[in-house]
Amino acid sequence: MRVFIAGVDGYLGWPLAQYLASRGHEVAGADKFLRRQWVTEMGSDSMIPIAAMEERLIAFQEHYSEDLRFYQGDLCDYRFVDEILAEFEPDAIVHLGEMPSAPYSMIDVDHTVFAQTNNLVSTLNLLYAMRDRAPEAHLVKLGTMGEYGAPNVDIPEGFFEIEFRGRRDRLPFPRQAGSWYHWSKVHDSNNVMFACKIWGLRSTDIMQGVVFGTQIDEMGDDSRMRTRFDIDQSFGTAVNRFCAQAVVGHPLTPFGKGFQKRGFLPLRDSMQCLTLALEHPPARGEYRVFNQFEEVYDVTELAQKVQRVGATLGLEVEVRNIENPRQEPEEHYYSPDHQHLLDLGYEPTHDVEAELEVMLTDLMQVRDRIERYRDVLIPDIRWDGSRRKSDFLEGVETDQPSTRDPLDAAS
Amino acid sequence: MRVFIAGVDGYLGWPLAQYLASRGHEVAGADKFLRRQWVTEMGSDSMIPIAAMEERLIAFQEHYSEDLRFYQGDLCDYRFVDEILAEFEPDAIVHLGEMPSAPYSMIDVDHTVFAQTNNLVSTLNLLYAMRDRAPEAHLVKLGTMGEYGAPNVDIPEGFFEIEFRGRRDRLPFPRQAGSWYHWSKVHDSNNVMFACKIWGLRSTDIMQGVVFGTQIDEMGDDSRMRTRFDIDQSFGTAVNRFCAQAVVGHPLTPFGKGFQKRGFLPLRDSMQCLTLALEHPPARGEYRVFNQFEEVYDVTELAQKVQRVGATLGLEVEVRNIENPRQEPEEHYYSPDHQHLLDLGYEPTHDVEAELEVMLTDLMQVRDRIERYRDVLIPDIRWDGSRRKSDFLEGVETDQPSTRDPLDAAS
Repeated sequence: MRVFIAGVDGYLGWPLAQYLASRGHEVAGADKFLRRQWVTEMGSDSMIPIAAMEERLIAFQEHYSEDLRFYQGDLCDYRFVDEILAEFEPDAIVHLGEMPSAPYSMIDVDHTVFAQTNNLVSTLNLLYAMRDRAPEAHLVKLGTMGEYGAPNVDIPEGFFEIEFRGRRDRLPFPRQAGSWYHWSKVHDSNNVMFACKIWGLRSTDIMQGVVFGTQIDEMGDDSRMRTRFDIDQSFGTAVNRFCAQAVVGHPLTPFGKGFQKRGFLPLRDSMQCLTLALEHPPARGEYRVFNQFEEVYDVTELAQKVQRVGATLGLEVEVRNIENPRQEPEEHYYSPDHQHLLDLGYEPTHDVEAELEVMLTDLMQVRDRIERYRDVLIPDIRWDGSRRKSDFLEGVETDQPSTRDPLDAAS
Repeated sequence: MRVFIAGVDGYLGWPLAQYLASRGHEVAGADKFLRRQWVTEMGSDSMIPIAAMEERLIAFQEHYSEDLRFYQGDLCDYRFVDEILAEFEPDAIVHLGEMPSAPYSMIDVDHTVFAQTNNLVSTLNLLYAMRDRAPEAHLVKLGTMGEYGAPNVDIPEGFFEIEFRGRRDRLPFPRQAGSWYHWSKVHDSNNVMFACKIWGLRSTDIMQGVVFGTQIDEMGDDSRMRTRFDIDQSFGTAVNRFCAQAVVGHPLTPFGKGFQKRGFLPLRDSMQCLTLALEHPPARGEYRVFNQFEEVYDVTELAQKVQRVGATLGLEVEVRNIENPRQEPEEHYYSPDHQHLLDLGYEPTHDVEAELEVMLTDLMQVRDRIERYRDVLIPDIRWDGSRRKSDFLEGVETDQPSTRDPLDAAS
């Protein structure tokens, strides 16, 4: 299969190129290296040192004996996108080329406008170029479980059958995103659904959980094949940050009460799932939604897992909650479906502790680097528009969510 | 009340300025005159001749003995929006400054990207400027009934209480828009809802039906106070186009089967409703949705009404269906709520025929002008991306919708 990866230089894009190539697929990719710039803007860097694209492409050629066709440019430039699809003629497109951070989108009006227009326009450009250049291709679009928010009912995969005042219909499940970034993904989901309807395109919209991990097996021990690993407030996800904190003896810092529940999955599972979606495309005109995660945990449970695994490696750290810079329910009902990928053969990595051990061991190799960037481990971008570092909270009970009225979760 | 109208030069904006001023409110407005440009781009012009803004402002001053403070510029420029709100200190903002056409948004990738980014960015800019300059102000945001599409269940006003797998929640009603333009309004609705939640702003999101009419009483017989009247495929709404067609003896042209149902309301009712919303603002942090229309008709019923009223004025025309350039259900269930505005005191103009008579009489004054633009009365922008004038359909039965399986309407 010929797969075009938009955003091939990123945390998911670079491993996916390897994962697909090792399975015999032909890969092309595009990037403008914005992720590297954004992380610099946040005063941080990838904790795992990463190679420049020129070196990555050489290493890729050495490993797979074929070139990764690379296009440098901006997905918001329609001519750029159109030329790639005309030239590469992909069977599938994986759109990882979006701005992926909630806090970054909340900084100020310029960042909000950038986050939403960058994501919206890159997706519209891909849809139009598909219509005109690759109408048979399959778009795998990365959304996020965060599109759904935390409703007080189960979360289906994209659509639900309802009865309302005695009549029935199958409707898109309502979205209640929690940041301008998450809303940009909802806007995209709506646009992709509409393009499938009017132009007969096919797409899988991936509502992905929080990804954690440093490695996939395909990287081997070639440092040029490693992917980035961010720990700053904008581009570091919760578990990645907890592991970095553990390595430098920094308390692990759930936000607020710490009972926010999320779906999580290891990096290697994300690769497996995306590939399953690619290898089982939907029919022309079909828009399907996969909820992509392994298990649901609350953030405190995960901090405690990192704490336990760390202890076996000689890393002794506390879990200390900090002020929540976000506005979000901190205790809520959460029960999302995730059956579609299992039906396609997804075999989840159930041993989260083993995965955490790999991560912590990798990060212990770059302890000095994390120490140097220790300052970025506490967030200061607040949902109310202000900018102030979160303080530690005293007296937060992290053993058990308090008994609560389930209806509160809807607020 | 101090009301800032974004898009004050438009079909709704200019009458609204007069309607509010005549009720003692202080009005400011902004515009970049894009609507005038878009209609020129479509090869058309306002059928009712309209004055330049300089003349409009002089006339406004003569009628109301006070200035309409006018700002010329682009709502997508944040500094422009920020300065207006800082200087004028509005109690309320009516956002009519968006690109309002479905066909225009469907032309090509450039028009789609423009439609969605223009609408999204102007709204984000207003929300940010409100947060920082006018946090107590009330945003009246113009959405459209088209955000909902045609689900097979009743359409509530924005939110509905559902039970799903034994649990209950109040959720945003799912949107299924039918054009890139309509989706831009959904994106906006989502963004406005989120801003109310995180920043405590207050907003009324108006899901407006199709507006028709040439006049409100406040215009009197001063030609400088008249508002524009478009008949081209992009900026002329169905009833406005039917009336123009009747005046020049052109068949009235419902699209496809012609049983598409919509909510409609006269221009004077739109003014009444917007003013009711303004004079009854929601609480801080409240995001409420009003479905704003008078009655639901199918397009053929309205064509027949125009035909009947036209006949009393000596205008004899046929109703002849044409190929539908859109992709939309042509027969469907449609039962939207519209109680909120009635609860605030909305008194609908029930005499649609009288309204049509005023319109037809006004348009008979400009028959030569309509004749000159006769060519724009048949659409050529198609939802599949092609551009070809619709042909007349033969043998379409317009008396009765066929008996149908209600579940078909969901597709």
